[in-house]
Amino acid sequence: MDLVLASASPRRQSILAQLGFTFRVIPSDADENFDGIDPREAPAELASRKALAVSLENPEATVLGFDTLVYLDGVPLGKPIDKEHARSMLSALQGREHQVITGVSVCRQGHCLHKSQEITGVLFRMFTEREMLDYIDTLEPMDKAGAYGIQGKGARLVRSVHGCYYNVVGLPVARTLDALSSL
Amino acid sequence: MDLVLASASPRRQSILAQLGFTFRVIPSDADENFDGIDPREAPAELASRKALAVSLENPEATVLGFDTLVYLDGVPLGKPIDKEHARSMLSALQGREHQVITGVSVCRQGHCLHKSQEITGVLFRMFTEREMLDYIDTLEPMDKAGAYGIQGKGARLVRSVHGCYYNVVGLPVARTLDALSSL
Repeated sequence: MDLVLASASPRRQSILAQLGFTFRVIPSDADENFDGIDPREAPAELASRKALAVSLENPEATVLGFDTLVYLDGVPLGKPIDKEHARSMLSALQGREHQVITGVSVCRQGHCLHKSQEITGVLFRMFTEREMLDYIDTLEPMDKAGAYGIQGKGARLVRSVHGCYYNVVGLPVARTLDALSSL
Repeated sequence: MDLVLASASPRRQSILAQLGFTFRVIPSDADENFDGIDPREAPAELASRKALAVSLENPEATVLGFDTLVYLDGVPLGKPIDKEHARSMLSALQGREHQVITGVSVCRQGHCLHKSQEITGVLFRMFTEREMLDYIDTLEPMDKAGAYGIQGKGARLVRSVHGCYYNVVGLPVARTLDALSSL
């Protein structure tokens, strides 16, 4: 199988490699704006846009697309625009459970063969102002939706996960394997 | 703080480093036999034995000890003795939830200041015989309690986690941070 990952994310590449797959990486330039889409359905919609765009250029390949969004009370949190924004996001998340949704899409011959999304709950611990500021000073939050990375120093913010852990990193492993094996 | 990790596990060293701690590694030679201890309390008991043994030799240090066991229906699963044993463990685990318990202990001056354990539920997906045999052929299961490593190729076996993910890898992050900050 000629497997293509339509994502530039090093974390997704690392998970797919960890599972033992051989694949090529062709990042998609699909539009990531989701105005006009129900935000709760945006991850699956954006994942399929990305996979479809790459599939049209590579019709023989099996193309995997993903899109991950972080939600608090049903509202998607983007990436922080500055340190103060990161601080306000992390303050809002602490001591509570939020949701991470990743859309999964598999395309071939310019057709979408699979499109779904996986939801994982993430409960943050209570942390001190000092811990939060130290974490922001690592700059790790600055390029991440929800202002944290669970696979990095952000692990210290998390008390528990309810669902697929790798979904929070950006690639829901069980769902992706099931989608590929059902083809 | 002179922090010492009383464990030779590269996975625990990697998590502690990921959190940003500076520490020394001094593996413990404490007895890991838990005959005569209630198996459900063995992780905390073994963790404190390990930390205490290292603390007695390094009284000024803050010593962290851990012990992780995998349970199915309340019975601890050890490491597989051969490939056939790994196959029977993975067959028993598939499609079901099992528990991973890690004991955490913090010792100083030869005294145990903290001793507790963290429980995480892990639900396995249903996989094919072929997938299972391929996984066993990687030899990854052979040195692991329960015959899998969630942070490796074993990620493909797991549908969802209920609780602390890093607990399954061998070091419950939130519990350890809380134990250290309460000292």
